[in-house]
Amino acid sequence: MIKVGIVGGTGYTGVELLRLLATHPQVQLMSVTSRKEDGTPIADMYPSLRGRVKLAFSSPENAHLEDCDVVFFATPHGVAMAQAPALLAAGVKVIDLAADFRLQDTAVFEKWYKMPHSCPDLLKESVYGLPELNRATIKSARIVGNPGCYPTTIQLGLAPLLKAGVIDASNLIADCKSGVSGAGRKAEIAMLFSEASDNFKAYGVSGHRHLPETVEQLSKLTDDKVGLLFTPHLVPMIRGMHSTIYARLTQTIDNTALQALFEDAYKDEPFVDVMPFGAHPETRSTRASNMLRIALHRPNDGDTVVVLVVQDNLVKGSSGQAVQCMNLMFGLEETTGLMHVPVMP
Amino acid sequence: MIKVGIVGGTGYTGVELLRLLATHPQVQLMSVTSRKEDGTPIADMYPSLRGRVKLAFSSPENAHLEDCDVVFFATPHGVAMAQAPALLAAGVKVIDLAADFRLQDTAVFEKWYKMPHSCPDLLKESVYGLPELNRATIKSARIVGNPGCYPTTIQLGLAPLLKAGVIDASNLIADCKSGVSGAGRKAEIAMLFSEASDNFKAYGVSGHRHLPETVEQLSKLTDDKVGLLFTPHLVPMIRGMHSTIYARLTQTIDNTALQALFEDAYKDEPFVDVMPFGAHPETRSTRASNMLRIALHRPNDGDTVVVLVVQDNLVKGSSGQAVQCMNLMFGLEETTGLMHVPVMP
Amino acid sequence: MIKVGIVGGTGYTGVELLRLLATHPQVQLMSVTSRKEDGTPIADMYPSLRGRVKLAFSSPENAHLEDCDVVFFATPHGVAMAQAPALLAAGVKVIDLAADFRLQDTAVFEKWYKMPHSCPDLLKESVYGLPELNRATIKSARIVGNPGCYPTTIQLGLAPLLKAGVIDASNLIADCKSGVSGAGRKAEIAMLFSEASDNFKAYGVSGHRHLPETVEQLSKLTDDKVGLLFTPHLVPMIRGMHSTIYARLTQTIDNTALQALFEDAYKDEPFVDVMPFGAHPETRSTRASNMLRIALHRPNDGDTVVVLVVQDNLVKGSSGQAVQCMNLMFGLEETTGLMHVPVMP
Amino acid sequence: MIKVGIVGGTGYTGVELLRLLATHPQVQLMSVTSRKEDGTPIADMYPSLRGRVKLAFSSPENAHLEDCDVVFFATPHGVAMAQAPALLAAGVKVIDLAADFRLQDTAVFEKWYKMPHSCPDLLKESVYGLPELNRATIKSARIVGNPGCYPTTIQLGLAPLLKAGVIDASNLIADCKSGVSGAGRKAEIAMLFSEASDNFKAYGVSGHRHLPETVEQLSKLTDDKVGLLFTPHLVPMIRGMHSTIYARLTQTIDNTALQALFEDAYKDEPFVDVMPFGAHPETRSTRASNMLRIALHRPNDGDTVVVLVVQDNLVKGSSGQAVQCMNLMFGLEETTGLMHVPVMP
Repeated sequence: MIKVGIVGGTGYTGVELLRLLATHPQVQLMSVTSRKEDGTPIADMYPSLRGRVKLAFSSPENAHLEDCDVVFFATPHGVAMAQAPALLAAGVKVIDLAADFRLQDTAVFEKWYKMPHSCPDLLKESVYGLPELNRATIKSARIVGNPGCYPTTIQLGLAPLLKAGVIDASNLIADCKSGVSGAGRKAEIAMLFSEASDNFKAYGVSGHRHLPETVEQLSKLTDDKVGLLFTPHLVPMIRGMHSTIYARLTQTIDNTALQALFEDAYKDEPFVDVMPFGAHPETRSTRASNMLRIALHRPNDGDTVVVLVVQDNLVKGSSGQAVQCMNLMFGLEETTGLMHVPVMP
Repeated sequence: MIKVGIVGGTGYTGVELLRLLATHPQVQLMSVTSRKEDGTPIADMYPSLRGRVKLAFSSPENAHLEDCDVVFFATPHGVAMAQAPALLAAGVKVIDLAADFRLQDTAVFEKWYKMPHSCPDLLKESVYGLPELNRATIKSARIVGNPGCYPTTIQLGLAPLLKAGVIDASNLIADCKSGVSGAGRKAEIAMLFSEASDNFKAYGVSGHRHLPETVEQLSKLTDDKVGLLFTPHLVPMIRGMHSTIYARLTQTIDNTALQALFEDAYKDEPFVDVMPFGAHPETRSTRASNMLRIALHRPNDGDTVVVLVVQDNLVKGSSGQAVQCMNLMFGLEETTGLMHVPVMP
Repeated sequence: MIKVGIVGGTGYTGVELLRLLATHPQVQLMSVTSRKEDGTPIADMYPSLRGRVKLAFSSPENAHLEDCDVVFFATPHGVAMAQAPALLAAGVKVIDLAADFRLQDTAVFEKWYKMPHSCPDLLKESVYGLPELNRATIKSARIVGNPGCYPTTIQLGLAPLLKAGVIDASNLIADCKSGVSGAGRKAEIAMLFSEASDNFKAYGVSGHRHLPETVEQLSKLTDDKVGLLFTPHLVPMIRGMHSTIYARLTQTIDNTALQALFEDAYKDEPFVDVMPFGAHPETRSTRASNMLRIALHRPNDGDTVVVLVVQDNLVKGSSGQAVQCMNLMFGLEETTGLMHVPVMP
Repeated sequence: MIKVGIVGGTGYTGVELLRLLATHPQVQLMSVTSRKEDGTPIADMYPSLRGRVKLAFSSPENAHLEDCDVVFFATPHGVAMAQAPALLAAGVKVIDLAADFRLQDTAVFEKWYKMPHSCPDLLKESVYGLPELNRATIKSARIVGNPGCYPTTIQLGLAPLLKAGVIDASNLIADCKSGVSGAGRKAEIAMLFSEASDNFKAYGVSGHRHLPETVEQLSKLTDDKVGLLFTPHLVPMIRGMHSTIYARLTQTIDNTALQALFEDAYKDEPFVDVMPFGAHPETRSTRASNMLRIALHRPNDGDTVVVLVVQDNLVKGSSGQAVQCMNLMFGLEETTGLMHVPVMP
């Protein structure tokens, strides 16, 4: 059994980790920290876990995280980098669901996250936790930066095209739509039901923190300079993410060959589903599961390929992907504890 | 492995059965019938099942249901009673998710469902599939009438009080609220998103088919005549049911004793959670799981006890309960394949 | 033109007042106060008002409220009673949308609102602003306590029955359901989209502040002692309120006579619609309008009458009713500026 | 008073016309036809109109539409072209909310709508009813083809850029998102609450009927060949439309000048609001009103301008725009009956 600790279990990625780990057959949950909720039974805060998670939140001091095999950080940016060095020194592996270990360029991190990075050396060692592109390095990693939700969809939606060199990497558009849970469990006016329901809007059009991470990773897939326009929008639904990606073809390639690029790339992937050419994936077809689905379109048989990608932002876009990484890091079957059938309707 | 057939797999109770059975470790899914969709891969209609359910729908003629160990009917009222006799004769057990085998009084059935009952003898043999009240008989049943969603909440919410004889059975009120999926997957104007969203209404206030079934079952728990007012409402949410039940106390009993009635009644029940006195259960705390949660209130310490009951109408209120019955009928651990942690948020 | 000031225009009742007053033909909006937003153009906070409301928020010091003819308080409890005496002394009428002037019994106020009342004399003078029951006194009032949203539905749903003396006043149940905007525009975790959406729950079952106000007013309609059980619930919709009210008949009365009680009581009321006996009013049939609709049921022709009442909680349940009172206080046609057709779908 | 008839009043554009016309001070509603609902009081089908619309639906034979001054067609494609010639001959003006008179190229109509056009001559005479671009011709038109909802946003979002010749007209992308009411009031499985709620998807990516109309109109604004990629998506909200439009700049132009293009173009428009550069308009800021709001972005100060456009699809995107056209055709103030303040929250 893998001994697991969670730092920051009160947010949505934290409770989603708990949902997944509560039925993971190889995991023993050791402690979940929350300074504010120290002593509160977790199931008091989340009645969905009554009878399933018996632990109470503990203060970091009493959590004995150094006795764990792995610690997940489901915390605001900046927390993991403060605690990771001591845990690693104690032989504990670290998976950060925030951004502390996603970017490898310290300057870029500090520009977008407005804070100094306290352990740039670890930043170099850390592995970007997208199994479909980095499986081998994740397996041997001590520290994983779990990808952002949007970047997961954009990378998996573009990777086969970039690797094949058939699109103009300098002219990419990702028009992305996310459910509200992506904003986390924070008391913000804009995320109130009465504000976000029956409403739709873009946000961060002039700049969003998921952009640099995506560009940094996409750049590894091509020798060309990557130019990406990324427009996030807020959808009145709890879970779900839909990315509509536009890329210009630079070579003559027919639709069958385009489709084959994706089917070949993902044919052995347990959590990436390439749907038939021209399909319209729905976010709910991935709800509460670790699946990500992709479909290709080529409007008017023109030179633009449109890639549609859906996932559950809290699972493949966050906590599920983190568990997938954990499975790899500990030599388990990658799908262990992650084979939930999507909840529909 | 239990060989399972499903008649009518295209509706919401059908697809929910598929979700549950796809990961049930003791089940082999043999065939799912739909005359209209004969030959269509199930996962084409329900992409959430891509990679998880490989069968195509088959016409009833080709389904070989007589080779199954058990057949679920997720069909409109009237279908199961037409096909059950032949299946039973072939040694196949039957679980009907519709109303054909819920009522034991033929006349009552015919009055409320406006059709003759074709096998009144089987009606007598059939068992009402509420495990918490009828576990022993379900275990040995050949044919089970799976309870309605509303009746499940009302019976489990009132059973400890009726059995203890502390309330006026002739003066019960159940003010119930259901998510829209309870109306099924039928193309009806009133269930369109643009009609049902951002809206709330009562329906069937003057009479609803779940009333006679509930009264018939409640009457088994008391010698007094049962008088029940049942008011269903439609809530703009997909899944979830909340019943607010009002009962007048006829005896002096303090809150601790009231609470003890429920805790004792359900202390060994894996799917009934008695929350602390005065709690407010939320429907989402049961979402996509087989849990039902109950909390008691006594406003102003008066003589009315208010029982709050929540469940997922498609799981404990329908398909999950049917699987729970199947587990009992085949001697499996009752919780097999049903230990999903509720999806929250 | 009536010169109008608003204290506390940043919440939902405030912005709804602005929506209604912006097109009211007899109103000149003078100032809207918010200490926190002093100087911010109102339309910057509420882009729905761009081009329609040109004022900026002003601090209370600069608002010159004493030059207004009437001031609305769309503030937390306790604010209106602090400022009302000076305004009244300056000849300004006051309409409070909070609870400061709803209850006439100071002790009851202090028990439920956990604060001393600073002007009990004004409490005696103030008029409860429910025009259908108190039209005459509202017309001559200097100070009006605008009713709570729930109490409006319960009183209008029960008044004809209580006045006729045909029900048991000691045994009333109001099972009420409200959209989320009733909780106001406050950054609370429980009101986040990801918490309140796709979910249903009761709250305050053991005691809610709208109870004493309702009982106090209902008691004026009958000589009997009023006993009311009031259970509020939260519905995942922005606006709308549905009350399901249960009353036991104490006299033989047929449905035609029951219906006539309501039709007679409200035949001249512009904002109360008595629907046909047995109808199921939907909240959306009142959305964004000042209408309240009522329908009667008598399940199984028994001795319980079920009254269904719907309204928009922010209009007839709050800001619209306040404008209706203003119209009366200033001798205008009662419907002035309030004839919006409900928005459907 | 303008005598108005409506053909096909049972759908969402029909009932929205009724909402708007019920309070229009210069309109007398003469008849609303529905063969299926002949004799049914309109308010029985739409209780939101109780007390506000007293007419019953009438069969076309009894509607005496030839006595009207103007007839709106809120019908499926193909109905208006069958009835328009006789009405025009009788001196009645016609406004079609469907597509019969939007496209001026008969061949294009027949290709996309799969039916022959029965009056190609009228097609030539008809005017495309987008007042901001065609005000003069609408004023003198006998027959108006009311624009589609998506095309309204795309045209008003691109017109200032195309007219100024600063973008590459051959490389336009419109990523559009619509509320569910855009699909109309038809009993379709895909539009059920349980299907469309808590879900997001694209549809018609490979070709949507609003594309040819948009291209035809955009082509009038530029000498260059228009190339448009149009991707519609379905948002789980009743009303509202958000278009995210991407255009490549072909000239050096700073953001101030870009913004000025829009502010100049729309400075006298009562229903087009140009928000500050970099704003994020929300659909709800236009809910139930005839307003359309636009904001510009220029990510990373690159050569792509992103135009965000929001409207209520049933008002400015349909019925409100039709009333705006009627006002122009009859010499009324353009804003008459259309000055509703958006409903927020």
